[in-house]
Amino acid sequence: MEVGAVVCLPRLSRVAVCGGTHGNELSGVYLVRELLKVKKKVMVEEEEESVSVVIVLSNPRATQQCHRYIDTDLNRCFTHATLNGPLSDTTPYEIVRSRELNTLLGPKGSSQAVDLVCDLHNTTANMGMCFITYSDCDWICLHIFRHLQMEIPDIPMRFIHFDVSNKESYSLDSVGKHGFAMEIGPQPHGVVRSNIYTAMKGGVQHMLDWVRLFNSGKMFKGGFVDVFTMVKHIDYPRDSVTHNITAVIHPHLQDRDFCLLHPEDPLFQTFSGETLRYKGNEPLYPFFINECAYYEKGIALSLARKKRVMIPPIQVETS
Amino acid sequence: MEVGAVVCLPRLSRVAVCGGTHGNELSGVYLVRELLKVKKKVMVEEEEESVSVVIVLSNPRATQQCHRYIDTDLNRCFTHATLNGPLSDTTPYEIVRSRELNTLLGPKGSSQAVDLVCDLHNTTANMGMCFITYSDCDWICLHIFRHLQMEIPDIPMRFIHFDVSNKESYSLDSVGKHGFAMEIGPQPHGVVRSNIYTAMKGGVQHMLDWVRLFNSGKMFKGGFVDVFTMVKHIDYPRDSVTHNITAVIHPHLQDRDFCLLHPEDPLFQTFSGETLRYKGNEPLYPFFINECAYYEKGIALSLARKKRVMIPPIQVETS
Repeated sequence: MEVGAVVCLPRLSRVAVCGGTHGNELSGVYLVRELLKVKKKVMVEEEEESVSVVIVLSNPRATQQCHRYIDTDLNRCFTHATLNGPLSDTTPYEIVRSRELNTLLGPKGSSQAVDLVCDLHNTTANMGMCFITYSDCDWICLHIFRHLQMEIPDIPMRFIHFDVSNKESYSLDSVGKHGFAMEIGPQPHGVVRSNIYTAMKGGVQHMLDWVRLFNSGKMFKGGFVDVFTMVKHIDYPRDSVTHNITAVIHPHLQDRDFCLLHPEDPLFQTFSGETLRYKGNEPLYPFFINECAYYEKGIALSLARKKRVMIPPIQVETS
Repeated sequence: MEVGAVVCLPRLSRVAVCGGTHGNELSGVYLVRELLKVKKKVMVEEEEESVSVVIVLSNPRATQQCHRYIDTDLNRCFTHATLNGPLSDTTPYEIVRSRELNTLLGPKGSSQAVDLVCDLHNTTANMGMCFITYSDCDWICLHIFRHLQMEIPDIPMRFIHFDVSNKESYSLDSVGKHGFAMEIGPQPHGVVRSNIYTAMKGGVQHMLDWVRLFNSGKMFKGGFVDVFTMVKHIDYPRDSVTHNITAVIHPHLQDRDFCLLHPEDPLFQTFSGETLRYKGNEPLYPFFINECAYYEKGIALSLARKKRVMIPPIQVETS
């Protein structure tokens, strides 16, 4: 790629906005319900739109019960293997549902898949607004991210990259040609906070605005984006017999997502009050610090390396 | 009662510290586990103690699953009617469990009941540390509260009074001769934060210290305590058909527990962005603002009236 050369990319005709993939992450649940209500009202005008927006409540049964999931985590069901495995009467609900969503928005990896999936999530961690993707060179996602950074300057915003192959990518957003999870926190699961809801609503509106501008032929300048690539997860110290945690996130680390963690910095505090320190030999950026849903996954926090990615100017292809 | 006259009260021989009454309120769950571990180690010394401390994990099955409850809210099962109703094979787990706890710590209202129950709770609301009781003239609870206020000056502390008769009192702490819920927040359910855990641990330690001092014959001076008496609950605006909420706590009210709410102050913000105002005609103190577990109970916040209660000096009865 020549520096400064405009990259031309196909138009984004179909965009999916999904919420309730985790049924107790309520900003996305209520935003999707609100968007569905508004969409009904403006159906006539929508025909003239340059983009068709599909709005999806991903896990209606879990949402109904305000649980993360019914049988298994829906947002781990979109691997090639799970989408193509055998089905039976005892197949977990979420695996059945992942097929339905793959039919509606995919099939994953095919030319019929929607052009972009934006999947709405909340976290109990103090992460501000994050894009979580499987690519550090998806110019569409990176340009949308930069657009939101400029349009919503009052919310800390980071771009997180999970380096997983397309075949092994497991989350709903991997079904689209482009896709990202929009993760916003801190918000307790089962609760909706006006500030977090409003940030998510603004994020989705600016994302759709960007898509319309892109489709209309606007050229977007290149530039730099800081990308946080996940390096490893760290679990809580646990009792070897009961598997119960024996320590919590240290008060000096709690709520300090994306503040560089150095070797020997405090990491955990045991229930009796002892400090345990970070024993890695490289400073890394912590995130998902004390996320509620990750206790069962064995993740107390994740660690990332930061790099600066140059993104090229882009424009829609003209046919 | 003569002003300044010392009130003599029976010694507190048996104290219960309970956690996990709601299985996803994790500070209490982990504090109880820690106390049980420590108690095992110091069993020999304990025989010389002036007070016998019973440590109870109230709802082990809900704790195991990290849910508030299995079948029904355990902390509503301790009314006279529920404790004495019929049992069958289909009786909800928590009703069966409430009988067990009533046998262990009560029977409620009898002379065999433990002298004091301290039941540990967490809330997603920004309430700091609160004592929640059914009485505004239980000198034991009020004196313990004052002691903690003096010993832990860095945590905002309030005394909440639910004006409910002894027969209709429904929570576990009502089983003791004296009792209170120690409610600390904000902490998401299913998460344990070191600052909240440490505050709770300190609260329990200072409570037990006070009991030992009281039993040893120390006289505690009288004084004043601000008591917040619950006046009413306010539910979220809801859709009349789906019963889904249509608005959330207004950003100006969120996290402002115990800040006086005046008529016409912002109360809710609808999902489309409209502000709804408080229509009461008396300024009141809001608390339990946006508590996760109360969405299903139809409570967006509770409102209280504040009064100043004079508490007398007290001392243990000498036989």
